[in-house]
Amino acid sequence: MVTERRRSWWGWGWEDEALNADQAANLAAALATRPGFQGRTVGAAPALSDVALPAARVAPPDSLAAFCSSDPYDRAAHTYGKSYRDTVRAFSGDLNAAPSFVAFPRDEQDVIDVLDWCGAEGVPAVPFGGGSSVVGGVELPGAVSVDLSRLDRVVEVDTMSRAARVQAGVFGPALEDQLRPHGYTLRHFPQSFEFSTLGGWLATRSGGHYATNYTHIDDFVESMRVITPRGVVESRRLPGSGAGPSPDRLFLGSEGILGVITEAWMRVQDRPVHRASAGVRFASFSDAVSATRGISQAALFPANCRLLDPGEAMTSAGVTDGSALLVLGFESADHPVDAWIARAVELCADHGGTLPEGVRSASGQGAAGAWRSSFLRAPYGRDAMVAMSVIADTFETACTWSNFEALHAGVVEAVEKVLADVCGGGWVTCRFTHVYPDGPAPYFTFLAPGRRGSELAQWEDIKSAASEVLLDMGGTITHHHAVGRDHRPWYDRQRPDGFAAALRAAKAALDPAAILNPGVLIDP
Amino acid sequence: MVTERRRSWWGWGWEDEALNADQAANLAAALATRPGFQGRTVGAAPALSDVALPAARVAPPDSLAAFCSSDPYDRAAHTYGKSYRDTVRAFSGDLNAAPSFVAFPRDEQDVIDVLDWCGAEGVPAVPFGGGSSVVGGVELPGAVSVDLSRLDRVVEVDTMSRAARVQAGVFGPALEDQLRPHGYTLRHFPQSFEFSTLGGWLATRSGGHYATNYTHIDDFVESMRVITPRGVVESRRLPGSGAGPSPDRLFLGSEGILGVITEAWMRVQDRPVHRASAGVRFASFSDAVSATRGISQAALFPANCRLLDPGEAMTSAGVTDGSALLVLGFESADHPVDAWIARAVELCADHGGTLPEGVRSASGQGAAGAWRSSFLRAPYGRDAMVAMSVIADTFETACTWSNFEALHAGVVEAVEKVLADVCGGGWVTCRFTHVYPDGPAPYFTFLAPGRRGSELAQWEDIKSAASEVLLDMGGTITHHHAVGRDHRPWYDRQRPDGFAAALRAAKAALDPAAILNPGVLIDP
Repeated sequence: MVTERRRSWWGWGWEDEALNADQAANLAAALATRPGFQGRTVGAAPALSDVALPAARVAPPDSLAAFCSSDPYDRAAHTYGKSYRDTVRAFSGDLNAAPSFVAFPRDEQDVIDVLDWCGAEGVPAVPFGGGSSVVGGVELPGAVSVDLSRLDRVVEVDTMSRAARVQAGVFGPALEDQLRPHGYTLRHFPQSFEFSTLGGWLATRSGGHYATNYTHIDDFVESMRVITPRGVVESRRLPGSGAGPSPDRLFLGSEGILGVITEAWMRVQDRPVHRASAGVRFASFSDAVSATRGISQAALFPANCRLLDPGEAMTSAGVTDGSALLVLGFESADHPVDAWIARAVELCADHGGTLPEGVRSASGQGAAGAWRSSFLRAPYGRDAMVAMSVIADTFETACTWSNFEALHAGVVEAVEKVLADVCGGGWVTCRFTHVYPDGPAPYFTFLAPGRRGSELAQWEDIKSAASEVLLDMGGTITHHHAVGRDHRPWYDRQRPDGFAAALRAAKAALDPAAILNPGVLIDP
Repeated sequence: MVTERRRSWWGWGWEDEALNADQAANLAAALATRPGFQGRTVGAAPALSDVALPAARVAPPDSLAAFCSSDPYDRAAHTYGKSYRDTVRAFSGDLNAAPSFVAFPRDEQDVIDVLDWCGAEGVPAVPFGGGSSVVGGVELPGAVSVDLSRLDRVVEVDTMSRAARVQAGVFGPALEDQLRPHGYTLRHFPQSFEFSTLGGWLATRSGGHYATNYTHIDDFVESMRVITPRGVVESRRLPGSGAGPSPDRLFLGSEGILGVITEAWMRVQDRPVHRASAGVRFASFSDAVSATRGISQAALFPANCRLLDPGEAMTSAGVTDGSALLVLGFESADHPVDAWIARAVELCADHGGTLPEGVRSASGQGAAGAWRSSFLRAPYGRDAMVAMSVIADTFETACTWSNFEALHAGVVEAVEKVLADVCGGGWVTCRFTHVYPDGPAPYFTFLAPGRRGSELAQWEDIKSAASEVLLDMGGTITHHHAVGRDHRPWYDRQRPDGFAAALRAAKAALDPAAILNPGVLIDP
C-alpha cells in the first residue's frame, strides 16, 4: 500500500505531522523547567531501512495473495499498537512482534477466506482497525494481521430513523465526511479519532464525545454484523429489545476474539446548532468533585463535563492560579440550551465555583474548538517525549462517587512513590473524562524522566503500581482503553470467574480453532 | 405460607381485589355495546379445593425441608405465570404444569443448597420472582419452583453514589417503601409493579417508568450477584467500564437459565419534585407519530411519551373525538422542567397537535396519578374477561421509525383478519410505551369474543398470526415482555444462530447439569 501521505510505522499519526526538530527542542526546553527533566537530548527517529524485521512464519497462499502484503512497511506498521511501550520498542528498532503478513480484505468474502485459511492452517489472525490500541490489543508475533481499512464506506442512510449502515474499517474523519452531506454526525471523538476505525471502537467499547449519558460507542449501536469462523452473526435493526441477553453486547468489547466486525447500523445525530459552554473554577478540588457529582445526578446531560485537577488545568488550559477547572458544554440540534447550562452553573456556584469568563452561548455550525485540536494532537507530543527518554503515559478507570476520594488519594500516593523510586521524580495529574450518576471516570496522566535504554523497565514498574492500586481500590482496570494483552493480569482479577468461563465457552463455540486474537481477554 | 391477605393462585394480584360480581356485570354490559360481545355470562372462579393437582415427581429432601413447601396453594400458585393462556388454564382447573414443590430460600446458602440438590438429582429448577411472566417463563411440570420472595430487603444504601444494594426477591412496593426514608426511588413501574420482583425485572429486561433514555431495568444496574450451579458470579460496582464484554449484560435477560440473581446494586433516583405534563391531541395518527419521533430525536428525554392511537385514547383516556393522544410528562428532582416541556409542545404543534387542557405544571411530591392506578389495575379486569370468555391480550415489539408504518399496517391487517376468522370480530389498538431516537416500541391490545372451551385454540391462532407478522416486518418478538417458552418459535428465528451457539455454550459452562429453567431461551 503506497499512499502520498504515509502514516508513521513507529509513532503516532501522519509522518509529516510529527514534531519537527524545533518543536521538539521547544518541548524539551519547557520540560527542563521541571526538576529531573534537564538536559534531555532528542534522539533520531529510526529509518525503516535500518530496522530488521523477523522472518515471516507463513506466507500468504495464492488464494489470498491478491489482498495480502508482505511489504516491510506494512509489516512494521502492523507490529504494535500505539501505547507508550509500543512506541518505545518501535523507536528503538525492535520489531520482533511483526506479523507474518497483512491482509487487506476488500469485502466480506475476503474476510471469510482469510479466516478459513487461518483456521485450516492453525495460524492466528489479529483483526486490525486503525492500530491505535494502547493495551497490546493488536500485537502477536508471526500472526496474520487482518486490516479492515478497505471496508470504509457509509453504505446506507435511514433518515427517518436517523441511522446509518457503516462498514467497520472506516476511520473517524472519513466517516464524518460521508455523514456530513446528510446533515448527520456520529459525534464519536476519542483521542484516536483520526487514526482509529468504527470497528475498533466497537470491539473495544470506545469512549467518545459525550461526557454523560451516552458515553461509550455501545450506546449508539442499533445492530452489528460480525464474521466469526463459524459463520456470520447479524443482529436485527432494533431501537430496543428485551428478547434474551443482547447479542450485540457480547460482541461489544470482544476485542477481536469472537469474530471480525464488518458492519454496523449506527444511531447518528443531527449536527448541533445550539451550544453553550463555561469554564468553572474551583479553589478546592474536593468542592469541584462535589459540584460535578451534583451535575451528573441532575439529569441535565451536558455533552462536556470534564473536570481537570489543578495540575491538568495548568498544563491543558493555562489556569495558573491553582484552581481546578470544570469544562462544561451543552449542545443541541433542536433547541437553545440556556436553561440547561444556567442550572448547571447554579449547581457549581452552590459549591464555590466561579466563572471568570461567564457563559459562552452560540448558535450555528461551529468549527471544532482549539481544545479538541490540541487534544487530538497530544500523541504527537508523546512521540517527541519518547525520543527524549521522557516517560509519558495515561491510565484510566471508573469508580463510585463514594469511592473516588480514597481511590484518587491511593493512586496519587502510589504513583508518586513509584515515580520517585524508579525515575527520581515526575508527576501525576487527574481529570474526569466521563461522569455518571453513580461515579466518575478518572483519567490519570504521568510524566517522568526516563533513563535511555531503561524506559521500558521503569514504565513497567509504574504501570504495575498504578494498576494494582486501581484494582485494590475497587476501580476497573479500564473505562475505555480496553484490556488487550497488557491489562490481562488485572482484568483477570476484576472479572468474575463465572463470566470468564462463559466467555471462554462462547469463544470455543464461535472460534473452535482458537485463531482469533489469542491471548486477548482470555486464554483458551 | 399463610398470609392474612392472599394472592390469587389462578388470576392476578390480591384475591380480595378481584372484580366483584357487580363490577364484572358492569364490564360485561359495557362490552355488550360492541358487536359480538352480547350475552356474556360470568363464570365462577374456581375453588382450589375442587382442583386436582398432579402428583409430585419428587419430594423435598430432609436437608431442604425447612424452607420448602408442598402445600397445594403454594404448588397451585407457582404452576403458571399470568399470561392470558395461563389464566384461562388455571380458571378452568387445569394445573397439570404444577411444580413438585416450592422452595423459599431464606438466604443465599439455601439457594446454593437447592441448586446443588437439583443438580445431583437431575431435577429442573425454575427461579420464581413474582410469577407475573406472560411468556411461560416459570412453567415446568414437576420442577422445583425456587421462590425468592424471602430475599426482600434493601441491604445497603450509598447516598453519595445514589445506589442501593437490594435483594432480588423484593416486590416493587416493598422496595419503594424501603427506599423512601432515604429520599430515593428506583422509579421502575412496570404494569406488574405490585406483583413482580427486582430479580424478575433483571432476568427479563423489564421495561419501566421512563419512556425515553433509560427505558429498561438494564440501565439502572451497577452490579449483580448471581448464584450459578458453578459458583457465585458477582460483578464490581462500576458506574461504567470498558473491560471486555459486560458481565452484567450476559445475565440481564437470561431468564433464569444461567443462574439465580440474588442481589444487585441499583442506581436509584432522588424523588422528583418538579413535574409538567400535557395531553396533546392529533387528528391524524400519522402526524402524531411524526411528532413523537421529533421529540424522541430532540434529546429532551421526557419521562412519559406515550402515544395512544384513537382506539386506545378512547378506551384508556376518554378521548371521544377520534383523536390520537400523546401523553407527555417531564419530571425532575433538580430543576423546573418548563423549558423542556415548552419545546416538546412546540414540536407537537409543528405537527398539528393541540392541547385542549394546556400544560399542567407542579412542584412538590405528587401522588401517583389516576392513570397509573388504572394502569396497575387493568389485569384484574382481564381476569373478569377470562371469566366471561372474552379473549383479551397484548403483544409488543420495537422497530425503526422507517419501518413503523408498514409494521403497524401489517399487524392491524393480520390481527383483524384472524380475529374475524376465529372469533367473528374483535378489535386491535396500539400505543407506544417507549420511544427511541431510531424507533418506537409499539404495544398492541386486542379484545375478541371467545367461545367457552375454545378460548385457548382461538388465542393461539391470534397470537401466532401476530407474532408472525412482527417477525416478518422486522420487529422484535418482545421489547419488554421477555421470551420464556411461549415466544421461542419466533425468538429462535430472530436471534442470530451464532449468538445461540454462544449462549448455549455459556449455559453449559455455568449449568453443566442443565437444571436451570430448561426450555427457556435455548434448548440444550
